[in-house]
Formats: sequence, C-alpha cells, structure tokens
Amino acid sequence: MSPDIYLDNNATTPLHEDVYRKMRYSLKYQYGNPSSNYEIGINAKKSIQYARNNLAEFLNAEPEQITFTSGATESNSTAIIGYCLKNKSKNHIITSSIEHPAIMEACKYLQVSHGFDVSYLPVNKDGIVQINHLASLITPKTSLVTVMMVNNEIGSIQPIKKIGALCKALDIYFHCDAVQGAGKLPIDVKELNVNSLSLSAHKIYGPKGVGCLYIEDKNQLYPLLHGGAQEMGFRSGTENVTGIIGFGQAVECLMDHWINDIQHITFLRNKFIGQLNQHLTDWSINGGNTVPSTLSLCIHGIRGEALAYALSQMGVFVSIASACSSSSSKLSHVLKALGKSQEEIRSTIRVSFGRQNTIQEIEKAINILVTTTSKLRSFSPMMVNV
Amino acid sequence: MSPDIYLDNNATTPLHEDVYRKMRYSLKYQYGNPSSNYEIGINAKKSIQYARNNLAEFLNAEPEQITFTSGATESNSTAIIGYCLKNKSKNHIITSSIEHPAIMEACKYLQVSHGFDVSYLPVNKDGIVQINHLASLITPKTSLVTVMMVNNEIGSIQPIKKIGALCKALDIYFHCDAVQGAGKLPIDVKELNVNSLSLSAHKIYGPKGVGCLYIEDKNQLYPLLHGGAQEMGFRSGTENVTGIIGFGQAVECLMDHWINDIQHITFLRNKFIGQLNQHLTDWSINGGNTVPSTLSLCIHGIRGEALAYALSQMGVFVSIASACSSSSSKLSHVLKALGKSQEEIRSTIRVSFGRQNTIQEIEKAINILVTTTSKLRSFSPMMVNV
Repeated sequence: MSPDIYLDNNATTPLHEDVYRKMRYSLKYQYGNPSSNYEIGINAKKSIQYARNNLAEFLNAEPEQITFTSGATESNSTAIIGYCLKNKSKNHIITSSIEHPAIMEACKYLQVSHGFDVSYLPVNKDGIVQINHLASLITPKTSLVTVMMVNNEIGSIQPIKKIGALCKALDIYFHCDAVQGAGKLPIDVKELNVNSLSLSAHKIYGPKGVGCLYIEDKNQLYPLLHGGAQEMGFRSGTENVTGIIGFGQAVECLMDHWINDIQHITFLRNKFIGQLNQHLTDWSINGGNTVPSTLSLCIHGIRGEALAYALSQMGVFVSIASACSSSSSKLSHVLKALGKSQEEIRSTIRVSFGRQNTIQEIEKAINILVTTTSKLRSFSPMMVNV
Repeated sequence: MSPDIYLDNNATTPLHEDVYRKMRYSLKYQYGNPSSNYEIGINAKKSIQYARNNLAEFLNAEPEQITFTSGATESNSTAIIGYCLKNKSKNHIITSSIEHPAIMEACKYLQVSHGFDVSYLPVNKDGIVQINHLASLITPKTSLVTVMMVNNEIGSIQPIKKIGALCKALDIYFHCDAVQGAGKLPIDVKELNVNSLSLSAHKIYGPKGVGCLYIEDKNQLYPLLHGGAQEMGFRSGTENVTGIIGFGQAVECLMDHWINDIQHITFLRNKFIGQLNQHLTDWSINGGNTVPSTLSLCIHGIRGEALAYALSQMGVFVSIASACSSSSSKLSHVLKALGKSQEEIRSTIRVSFGRQNTIQEIEKAINILVTTTSKLRSFSPMMVNV
C-alpha cells in the first residue's frame, strides 16, 4: 500500500506518527460537539484551543487571530474574497504570476464576477518577484496584494518581508499564501507585516481537510461561511475537531524538529544533485533561491509526463508540476513566467523531499531515474541535446 | 472519557464502528493526493468516487451531482450565496422562521451585504410551515426558497415535497437543509424536486469536518472556494480524503440499517415518554409531527439550563436547544416561532436519541431526570404549576 519511494512531498505528506496517534484516539473518544456545555463538548473545545495556541506560537500571533478552516484554499478564498468584497471602494488586486491556483482563481472570480482589475507581477529567471516591479504596479485603486511565500512548483522564496513593509507603508492589505513556507522557513507574522496568511495541515505531516488563516484584524473581512458563529464568530460550521487536533500536533512536531528536518532534507537534496551530476547529462534546475525540499528538474530530451509515469511504474513517485495541475494538460504557468521554453516546460519533473525520506531511498531513486532517463532518451523522438 | 448516557445525538454522533475502522486505516495508509497520477493518488481518487457513489445512491442522485464540502454550513453557504450572487436580477429570498443558523446567517449576509430582501415563513404550533403561507410570500422578485427538512431543535418534519413542487411550478430555486433528515426519513432528490440539498456526516455517525451538497445543475451557482478545480471543478481544495471515506462509509451503514435504527429509536422514545407519564408531572412536548429521534421537552417550573447542567453532573447529556445556540444566552428562535412563552422556552430541554442508545440507558436517564427535576423544583423560585 505504502509507496516505495515517495518524492512528492509538495503534493501532500504522510501523517507524522504522533499526529496519527492523536487523531486515532480523537476519532474514537473525542466525539463531543465543541459547542456543547458538558464534559465531552468542553473537552473538544479545549482541544481546539490547545491547537490554536500551537498555531499562534508557531506564527508569533495571538490565539484569537487564528481561524481554523477546511484547508488553504478556503483560507485563501476567505482572505481575498472576504477583504475585497468588504472594501469595494478600491477594486485593484496585485498578485504574482506564479501563484497557486487557489490564489489565481480567487482573483479571477473577483475579476469576472465582481468587476475587479487584477495585475500579475512578473518574476525574474529564478522565479522571484521584484519589489520595484510591485511598487510600479500600485495605483490609488489598489486594494490588496497577495504573494506566496514559497512557490509550490520550483520552491523559490519570495521577499515577503519587503512586500509587507511596502504594503504597510502604503496602507494596502497584504495576504500571503504560506502553505509551502511552513516547516521550511521561520514564519513571524509580525515581522513579515502580513495582514493575513494561510497554512495547510497536509503539507506539514498533518491531515487533509484542515488549514488555518491568520488574520490580523477580522473586522476588515467578510466571513465566507455563515451560521453558528464558531471560531469566535468568524468561521461557522461544527469544528473538524479531530482534524484540528491533528493540525495542532503537526505544528507542535514542526516546532520541535523543523530545523533538523531541513538539515536532513538539505543533505538528501545535495546527495541527489551530486549523483545527478555524476550520472546524468543534459539537465538543469528551474528557479533559484529555493527551499531545499523542492527540486524542479528539466531533463532535456524527454517528456516529464513520460518520465514521471515510468518512474511511478518503478515505485518512485514524483510529479510533473504541482498536484493541482497534474490532471490538467495545460503547461505550467509558473515555468512560463520564468521564461522557460515549451520544450523545457514539457521536460520538467518536480522532486520534493520530506522528513521521512532516507539516504537509501535517494540512492535508489537516482539509480532508477538515471536508468529510466537513458531508456526514454533512446526511444525519444525529441533531440537529446536541446 | 466516554459519557455515561449521551442523549444529544442531534448535536453530533459518535462514529459508527465501521466508519472508525475505515478512517483509521485511511489516515495511516491512504495519504496520496487524489490529484496525483500514481498509485496512492489514484487510489485516493477512487476512494472518493466510491463515497460519492454511496451518496448518490442514498439521495437518488447522479454521482456528478454530489459535491463534497467541509460540512453542512459550507454546503448551505455555497447553495444560498452561490445561487443568489449569480442570479442577482431577482433579489428576494424566502426561508422559514425556524431554520438552523447556517441558513439564517447566509440569508442575513445577502440581506446586509448585498441588498437582498428576506421573508420569514411562519410555522404553526407544531412547528411546521404551511404551503399556502409560502405561496402568499412569493413575488416576481423571489429568487430562492430555502426550507429545512427536519428542525434540529424540535424535530418537526417540513412539507419538502410540496414546497419543491410549488417552486418547480414557479421556476424558483429551492434549497433544502436536510442535515437532520438524513437517517430519519427517506430522501429522494428527484421526488422532492429540490435544486440543492445539504447533508452533514457528523450527524449520521460519520466524522466532523465533512458534508456534501447535492446540486441538480452546478451551472446555476458560483462556487464558494476557488482554486485547483477539485470536485469536478466546483469545489476547490485538496480533498479531505479520510473524512470523505468516513462519510461514504457512514452513508453505507445508514442504507443498511436506518429502518432498524428508527424502529429502535422509536421504541426508546416511547419508553421515555411512557416513563415520564408515569413519574413526572407538569411537562409537555414542543412541536408535532416530529421524527422519533428528537424530543423537545418543556419541564415546567425549572430552568432548562439548570436541568441540563444538573443532568450532566449525573452523567446524562442533553442540550437546552441546539448545540450551535447552547453557548449563547439568546432564547430559541424556533420555540419563539412556535408561539411559546418566555417561561416555556426557558423550561425546555432537548433530548435526542441515537442508534447506540440502549433501553437500560433510557431507564437510568429517566430515573435521573425525575429525581433531578424534583430536587430542582423544590429549590426553584418559579411556580411549579405554570
């Protein structure tokens, strides 16, 4: 059931063992509704508060600034749509050209259905937005800026602190999708000057179906879900108690050992690249200034899809771009934004490392990658040396 | 950890043992992202499809008409806000005066933030809306009608089929919150003529944090969450795979034995009422034509809050109205709509039975209720015979 070598940790991560244990217990015993005023209800409420405190500590926020959601997509839609619809006197949004669909599509909804204008900030060849570019796009009508912390396809780190400072100076709302930043970079919402920030549990060894939204001041936003006034009145719906407990535990684990994890992952990445250098020709890395966990590889002369499929048949699991776009036949908008050619984009696979990966797995994966690439290249109608 | 006698099954239900087993397994082994094109991703996608087929069978719908959500609140907000904002040429909503906050607040949001008019359909003394009343409220501007299937506080069953037929005849969109109907009444979306219908997993022995929305035709609505185009493009966000698996299993269990469950619950309810008749004076039942699982009891001469608290100290768990309103000090809008006096509302507790309750629990609970009521009445400043 468990895959041989899972190198798609940007798509999702297996549960941390401590998260699994807590959730298994919670599923069985902690079934009270947190709004109920007797013991199992009160205990469920306390468990949520415990998780909230963990998240607050993790982000250097106040617990009441953390809202649990069903995941980062809900968090992003809440922040972007909730702020823009409540502050319609300005109707211009700026985002980057390499955002996750959860940001792109929320902006597009405001554009198509509510008449907003959207500007797309370009990136340099490393896949990083430039603060001067951002400044030049700002107009008196600019309501909101939203830029991701770390790109999901190539891993490039964005200058969030600089963007936060600029937006603060100009009194523009700044939202940050930090899904791929958590566990890879320190996140301090005060230092970054973000007005809101999204996280997802399942990218940090927690469960799917739960995330959170840090919001500096909830009065600035409309809620997205309306009802029983859970989450301090801002996000209605009976709380996903077990999911939230799992998320809180995942964050607790991260706080304990993310530095060690990053060292381990950096070691794996260096080993991987060292081996590639020794055994494979005609490849390159997309993007620069990246987190160590993400490696976007252009392996010239073959199709990324064919390679990823062939690798999966050998028990090595990688993706071509992001999980969200892997069922689509469209070319990666991220790699396009980097100025990559169609051939380069088509020859790309994404390898993403996790804390559970071992050096033995990396060695085995490299062997399989090198062999598979040679085979595919020998069959490929494309030129090897592009 | 587990409560002695849990009689608040309308607030939430413990997991069915089969649901727990499937979820525990899924948490540990099925961590693939359903959008990934290799084995564990494909298996996750298949599991979701299996659950979707169960839901479709349960509701007599097509699988592609089922959208998984984070719960009934999201389902209700999606249907009501998604339809009304996409069809703004009409701006009048009709709902009942006894809806759950998830409906009430979604309507209020459209009223306060988007200029919609909202009419509230009254109920008779049993807590049931009248189809003629509904007809009289309809105007050429009426965009949407939303009425719940079964009331969560008193259990009264609404004439959904009649409302569906009327709305269909007049080409008005009809949404139904069926959260408290599932497992208590047969639900056939075609027969009921609903355009959309919400369900929640945690009210039918499934997990919290997952629900679904049946939608006859998704083109009529805006999505609420925007992004990676999961759920056939209508509800973005990485799927809560384990939660959806649990929901699918909960529905499979329901289909197997809901008729038996209802017989068992009816037996428990009759026993409960029979014992009350024998051992307690000055009490009455709020509402009429109810599902057997819900018993809204007015126990004259004492405060519901005091009684519920005292019962909880004795290990018997009930609520005063709904879980969602139990942390609020406001009087129940449902009981007000029935024409109950302030004293009657303040003297009400809600007892709700579940499939796991036993006749021994009912006998024990009745003894504790009778004893506790006598004690409280002897201390109460209120008159016993009101």
